[in-house]
Formats: sequence, structure tokens, C-alpha cells
Amino acid sequence: MAFKFQVNLDVKFNHNAVFLKKADKYKPKIIYHQLSAKQLIKLTKDETKLDGVGVSNAGSVNELKSKKFGKDDNFLIDIGQHCVGKFQIHIDHVGSPMDAPLTLKIRFAEMPNEFKYNSKDYNGWLSKSWMQEELIHVDNLPVDLKLPRRYSFRYVEIRVVDTSPKWSVKFSDPRVISQSAVNKVQIPKSKFDDNELDKIYETGVNTLHDCMQDVFEDGPKRDRRLWLGDLRLQALANYASFNNTNLVKRCLYLFAGMTAEDGRISANVFTNNKYIPDDTFMYDYGLFFISTLDDLLKHEFNQEILDDLYPIAKKQWDYDQKFISDDGKVITDKDYITFVDWSQDFDKNTSAQAITIFVLKQLIDLAGMAEDSEKLKYENQLNKLVNYAENKLFDHKKGLFISGPNKEINVASQVWMVLAHVLDNEQNHALMKKTQTELFPIKGIATPYMYHHVTQALFEAGFREAGIKLMKEYWGKMISLGADTYWEAFEPEHPNFSPYGNAMVNSFCHAWSCTPVWLLNKYLN
Amino acid sequence: MAFKFQVNLDVKFNHNAVFLKKADKYKPKIIYHQLSAKQLIKLTKDETKLDGVGVSNAGSVNELKSKKFGKDDNFLIDIGQHCVGKFQIHIDHVGSPMDAPLTLKIRFAEMPNEFKYNSKDYNGWLSKSWMQEELIHVDNLPVDLKLPRRYSFRYVEIRVVDTSPKWSVKFSDPRVISQSAVNKVQIPKSKFDDNELDKIYETGVNTLHDCMQDVFEDGPKRDRRLWLGDLRLQALANYASFNNTNLVKRCLYLFAGMTAEDGRISANVFTNNKYIPDDTFMYDYGLFFISTLDDLLKHEFNQEILDDLYPIAKKQWDYDQKFISDDGKVITDKDYITFVDWSQDFDKNTSAQAITIFVLKQLIDLAGMAEDSEKLKYENQLNKLVNYAENKLFDHKKGLFISGPNKEINVASQVWMVLAHVLDNEQNHALMKKTQTELFPIKGIATPYMYHHVTQALFEAGFREAGIKLMKEYWGKMISLGADTYWEAFEPEHPNFSPYGNAMVNSFCHAWSCTPVWLLNKYLN
Repeated sequence: MAFKFQVNLDVKFNHNAVFLKKADKYKPKIIYHQLSAKQLIKLTKDETKLDGVGVSNAGSVNELKSKKFGKDDNFLIDIGQHCVGKFQIHIDHVGSPMDAPLTLKIRFAEMPNEFKYNSKDYNGWLSKSWMQEELIHVDNLPVDLKLPRRYSFRYVEIRVVDTSPKWSVKFSDPRVISQSAVNKVQIPKSKFDDNELDKIYETGVNTLHDCMQDVFEDGPKRDRRLWLGDLRLQALANYASFNNTNLVKRCLYLFAGMTAEDGRISANVFTNNKYIPDDTFMYDYGLFFISTLDDLLKHEFNQEILDDLYPIAKKQWDYDQKFISDDGKVITDKDYITFVDWSQDFDKNTSAQAITIFVLKQLIDLAGMAEDSEKLKYENQLNKLVNYAENKLFDHKKGLFISGPNKEINVASQVWMVLAHVLDNEQNHALMKKTQTELFPIKGIATPYMYHHVTQALFEAGFREAGIKLMKEYWGKMISLGADTYWEAFEPEHPNFSPYGNAMVNSFCHAWSCTPVWLLNKYLN
Repeated sequence: MAFKFQVNLDVKFNHNAVFLKKADKYKPKIIYHQLSAKQLIKLTKDETKLDGVGVSNAGSVNELKSKKFGKDDNFLIDIGQHCVGKFQIHIDHVGSPMDAPLTLKIRFAEMPNEFKYNSKDYNGWLSKSWMQEELIHVDNLPVDLKLPRRYSFRYVEIRVVDTSPKWSVKFSDPRVISQSAVNKVQIPKSKFDDNELDKIYETGVNTLHDCMQDVFEDGPKRDRRLWLGDLRLQALANYASFNNTNLVKRCLYLFAGMTAEDGRISANVFTNNKYIPDDTFMYDYGLFFISTLDDLLKHEFNQEILDDLYPIAKKQWDYDQKFISDDGKVITDKDYITFVDWSQDFDKNTSAQAITIFVLKQLIDLAGMAEDSEKLKYENQLNKLVNYAENKLFDHKKGLFISGPNKEINVASQVWMVLAHVLDNEQNHALMKKTQTELFPIKGIATPYMYHHVTQALFEAGFREAGIKLMKEYWGKMISLGADTYWEAFEPEHPNFSPYGNAMVNSFCHAWSCTPVWLLNKYLN
């Protein structure tokens, strides 16, 4: 997740010390592994790969120590897998005594095409500071250079800016201390009797693994933080794989421990230094606290968490009442946007209506668990919301939901209405059939986040084969383009598109894209 | 000192553990001071300053913390004096939570004109790695940023490469932990009844102070190491000021502990990491071991040092015999160059003859101290060298020394012959008179190292006023151009000249330039 900037410096936040202490209690013990680099590589022109950049073997890592590097020389290392961690390499000098410092430029890349770009040409809206590159001066050799910062990468470029004319450098033993809150070896190999699906599943597991750190990070390369809507999907994929429920509990307590005084839950929180809630709020992301809590308690019931967090969920719902009219219409607000997808090019009113229904059903489920007398009130409101959707938003003639003042028909509205089960199963099937006939192939959706919901809607509406086909066309396509982990953004009709104008700040390992792990387990097992 | 590169990988070195242990024994305890930055500055166009760059006040350091800095903003700090040490600054963020790392580019400069240049345009023969600039990523704020490397500087530029659109940074409390082997407070204020000379003296003391570290460094910004010819002058200036003789002893033991097996003493040694002799050798620099040892023992006699190091001095002299013919002619060799000065544009044969005589007189002095029976042999050889100089190199008609096959007449030959006292005092006076009439104003000499010898020759030959005048014209000119410490290179007729094509790698605090400290004490007190 990364979204247009909001600045709301006037918002006041609660800090619930008890909840934040519980968040600490569930803090994971990070697991470290040492990975030796796999091979040296060179970039190749390969139109079958992302951005036309492939790689080929350029020698074994053992050969490295017999090579000498001087001013402007460079080489590329392939760790052999995407990883999150700290990089180390041994460096010595060859020739006359070291009469000047060594200067290196080191770049880390998740995908080979990142090396096509130069950070100084970047002029996008995201901070340049995300570029994973360092200028390093080494005053004394030999050294075991251990870079102190954490990177998300598979490939490393080392460029010698300068030595001196009297000596060269040689490198050896490049390695990574990789890290995660979870251990991949605990996951059984997938067995879907379909190599493509097995690979799609494993790539999802790798993505989730690398994003599970001190919290569920959205992307370990960029943003590196806990977003609520992303958490919902990560938690589901996690239940279907690592099943580390403590990390989900930690994250829910972090959101619950730092709500705005008016009841809103931040779209994301920062945890790197102190715990800090972001001043960014989104209608759907706030609601997904309710959804994530309900998913957790259905997966593993816990009375203490229900007692603690259900009141927080209710407060968020209470806050949202000003956006729901008496006749059950959700009124969207430009200052409290409904995200749905990155695209700003489609109308999101009906999606917001459907998401509200989707979440309210989960709130009612929680109310049942909590034996809350307000359950009936929620059920009455649900009826109004559903009635409004059926009567005012469903175009019976067209057999599709319309959205907004211009009665726009778009994929997201249909998909979220299916997921919210506003219609019955038969009608949902017809709706998704119509959606496929009239709105496929999908255009203008750039996030796996939205593709996830489309795919799930196909499964929910009984289109198992179409769900598998879309999964292969979308997530399978990333793999064939070279993905080791799934990307934050991918628009199959424009595979090289970067939302930031430079692949160097793309996040090529982004947790909201890992959901085939959950979809395959839920709908194919 | 920094000179054309030699690579002599085949040379074998002795490592005398006893001598190197004695070098350790004399290792100084470094003295640290905390300096708060003096003011904020901006660059001004000022043709009276070096390279046309002056500075003016841009506010107090206290104002800094009320300023906000975002992407591409920068500011300049003036520490208030040249110093060698580590830089620190406090950084916090203002605005929304810190949703991206902070990236800073930090540049350190000894002189304001360095900021005119960009490291990426540098294409000189010295290593780019000497550029004092860092690209720093800060993942969490607030931070007391303490840069781990040592710099030599007075000015600091901090440029914000990026924050994010949601927040800015503010800085406070820029400071330096400066370091030296000696303490400036121990030096009495100079009293030459001449403000210009007082200033020349103090600037020399500052230069020497900043170069006295773990060894006598040539320049703390660039090269940062112990050169033998530079040591000779630093030691003399040190006797006249800080009088830290232990540091001289340490340096002599370092050279003596790592001689080539054939007896040659390296032109410089590395001490930052392990003790390593450089594979660079120069005829005059090797001889100056003898000179520096004799200067030390005349200043402060020490039997142990005489016993240890006189044999090393003799071995260097023995090695040099192959370059002295039976009739007393020094035969220069392109593989064992005589430095004299950076310029390669004048003939150095007669300078080499004079330096050999100059040093042999000091060897004879040492032989006397050591009661060495070979003293007589040395005296006989001295006669031959002097006779050759008088008979073959002095042009009686012109009253000047000639040099080389083309009988070139240059300043260096006259100056070194005066310093070697080949002629009697009256003849020396006449020689320097002629030198001033015919060869002044000096052209084509770019180092204070050579200007030192010219100035000393004027004093030695009785031209006290001319010596003072040259000192004011040369060292005084650096001060009027903005020097806080004296420069490695300065050619008054081309003040902006950089031997490296970019002021960023110029060393503006270079110990071989500090010699007015000694000259003023010796000839004016």
C-alpha cells in the first residue's frame, strides 16, 4: 500500500498503554538465516521478462575472489531468492598499499529491471529516500563490510567509484542475514496437481514470508509499515500458511491502541521507532479493522481480545454513521476516501456501499460473540443497506450494479456486491457471468489487491475455472515475467507500468498480492 | 605531499618488531575538544578570496532549529575554525509521521571555494575517494547523527535529498569533536611586533596542530599519512612550538622499522590500519631520514635512539653510494627521483648534489655523536662532493650554479647550494643577491615546500628583510585569500590553480606549509 498523501495534523489520538503493552507481548522473535549468494550474473535483453530485462549466469561466486576491480568496474550478484535482510561482503585490496579510501556504490534490487534506471532521474511523488542505494567509503582494508541497514532484494550491484591507480580491490563471500517473523520450512509443499498453481502458491508464501517482520509490513522495500486494509488480506493468507496468529493480534492491538479521539482507526501505523499512528484515514480501511478482528476470532477465538477490541470496532462503526443515510445509502466523502483500488478513474460509491454491507455482517457476527444487545440494531441497519443496494443500485434490466450519479457500471461494484452477498447465490452467479461477458477482460486495474477481490468473487459465485484462469493470467503472468515475490502493482495490459515513474521505487514484494495462498486453500482444497 | 604514483611490488621489506614496538611506545594520546558551530553562512562572490568565493553570515546557529528543510533545501555551517574531527548534528522531523527515510548529502570543505565544484565532474589523477562527501540515509528520527569518519574541514554543507511530502526536517546543535596529538593552549601567543607576522605564525601553528595526529600527517584531508620529507619540516616547526618530541621519535621508528631489504627507506608509511611501508622511494626523501634524526638529536639528545637509528641512517647512505661517482658527482636516476618540488619543468641535478651535501654534513654530525670510525670516510666524500659542486657546477662568470646537461640556471639549485653551505658566507650572500636580481620574482614553483627552502636560503645568506618580504608575499597572500591553515599547493601567479583539476581534492591544511613557525623562531627571535 502507498497512497496519495493526506496531512491531518489537527487530529488528536488516544494512546492506550494497556493495549500497546499487549502489542508488545505479541511482538515476534525475529528468525535470522544466513544466505550465501548463488551466482554472479549479467543483465540480458529478454523481451519475455519485465521491462525487457533478463539475467544470465556470469560465473560462480567463488570466482569472485580471483577477480580484480578498479575505478568504474562493477559486478552483479544474485542471492538466488528474494530476501529481506542485511548484506555483507568481504573486501581486500590487491597491489600497492592502500593510499586512499575505497568508494563503492551499492544498489539493491528486487527485480533486474531496476538496474535500468538511475536514481538521479527519478522525479516521482514518492520519496527518493526509498531508493535502495548507498555510497560507501571504506578507509581501511581488508574489511568484512556489514551494511547496517535492512534491504529487500535479490540482486546487488557493486560499483567501484574509485580506489587509486596503485591498487585494486577483490571481493569475496557476499552473503545476507535474512530475516522474518516466520520460518518457511514449516510450510508443507503445495500439492494442487498443477505445476502452475503450485508455483503461484509458493510465490505467495515467499511474498508473505518476506513481509512478516516486526509487524505485517505492506512491502519490506518501501513503506515498510502496517496498513489496515493490507493486514486484512495478509492475516487471511497467514491463517492458510504460517498461521502465526500472534502477529495478527499484535497488529490489531497497535491499531486499537492508537485510535483518533473521534473513534477513527488510522489507515496505517508506524512501529520502527516509537509506535505512531499515521494521520491518514480511509473509509474502507477503517472498516476493515472490524473485518480483520472477526476473521481472527472465527479462526481462533479469544475472549480477552474480543473484550478488548470489539468496543474499538464499534467506535469505528459509530463514527461511520454520519456517512450512512437513514434509508441505508452510503454517502462517500472526499475527505474520508474509500480506497477500493489505486485507480481514481472509476466511481467507488457502490463499492463503498458493498464494503459497508460486507463489514457490517462481520460486525453482527462479532456482536453475536460478544452477546451485544445492539446486534438487533445492526441487523436492522443491514437490511436498510441491502435494500438500498438492491432497489437503488441494481439495474435489473442490465443485470449489473450501477455506481454514482452517472450510473457507471464497473467491475469493482459487481465484485464487492458479490463478496457482500447482497444477492442470493443464483443471482450472484448471474451477476458474475454478466460481469465476465461485459466487463472482461479487465482494464484499468493496477493492483493485485483489487484483482484478489475479482478472483474471490469468481470463486464465491461458482466460477471455479474462471477463478483459476484469472489467477494464472494475473499472478502466473508476474511469475513468467520473472517475479520471485508478487508486486505491489501490476497491470497486465501495461506490464512495465510503474505508478511512480521509476521501477526503482516499485515494491516488488508486496503482501497484499500474496492472497493466492488463501484463495487456493479456501476454494481449491 | 602527494606525488606521481610508483608501483614497486617486488620490493622486499624488513619488519623490525623491536623498532615498531618502540613506535607504539611513543604513540600519542589524542586530545579531543568539542567545538560548537559558529554561524550559518552563505557563499558570496568575492574576487579578493580564493577562486572568487567568500562567505557572509547567514544567521546564528541557534536560529537553525526554527527552520524547516524539505527536499532539495540546503544550508551551510561554519565551524569557525579549521579542524580535524568528527561531525555531529541533531535532526528531528516536523509535520506528519515520518513515512520514508531521510536522505542527506553532507559535504565538508576546508575552503569555501570547494563548494563551487561537483565531485561528479572530477576526473583528476588522485582518487575520487578523497572527496569529503557522504550520502546518508536516516531511517528513524529524532537522531543525534554522529558521522563515524574523520574529516578535515571548517565548513559543512547539508543538503536534504528527500524527506517525503508529508514532513520536513529541522536541525540543531551542529558540533565537532576535534582531535590532535597536541593542545593549542600550550603555545604562547606570538610577539613579533608585526601583526602580519603574528598572523603568519599563528596560521602555521594551526596548520601543524591539525596535522599532528597519530603520526605527523602530511594533510589530514587527503593523503593523511606520514611522508619522510614532510616529517623533516614538521619536526622542525614542532620543536619551535608544541615541542612534542615523542611524536618525532615515533615517526622515525616507523620508518626505521620497515626499511627495504636493500637499505632504502620508504618515502612514506601507512599507519591507519596495520603499519605498512609504501612502495614509493625518492632519493631526497630517503636521505632526509638522516637529516631528521640529526635534527632531533641536536634538539634533544637520546643515546638509545642514536644507537637504534644511526645504523639505519648509514644503510640508507650506503645504498645511495651507487648514485655518487668517485669524483663526487651525484648521478640522478629516473627510477629513484629527487623530488625537490612538484614541478617537473626544471632540472634537478644540481639540487640533488646540494641536498646530498646538506645531508652528508648531518650524517657526519651523527657519526661524531656515535663516535663512528667511518666519520673520516664521510668527510673525505664530503670534500669530493663539495669540490665537484664548486668546480663543475658553479659558473663563476655568471655567479650562479648551473644544472644538468643544458647548464640550466634555476632557483632551486642556488637555494639548495646556499642551504648546503657549499660556498662561504660571503659567496652565499652574493649568490642569493644574484638569485634575487636574476631569478625573482619566482615563477613556476607551486609548493610551500620549495618556497620554504627559498625563504630559508634568504635568511641563511643574510637577506633578513627579503626573507620577511617573501614570507609575507607568499604565506601572507594565502591568509589574505582566506586561509585558516596553509595549503599543500600555492602558486601566487596562479592563485586558483589546483594540481588536481578540482579544489575538492586540494589539501588546504598541509603540514609542509607550516614552516614559518620555525623560520620566524629561528631567524627573527
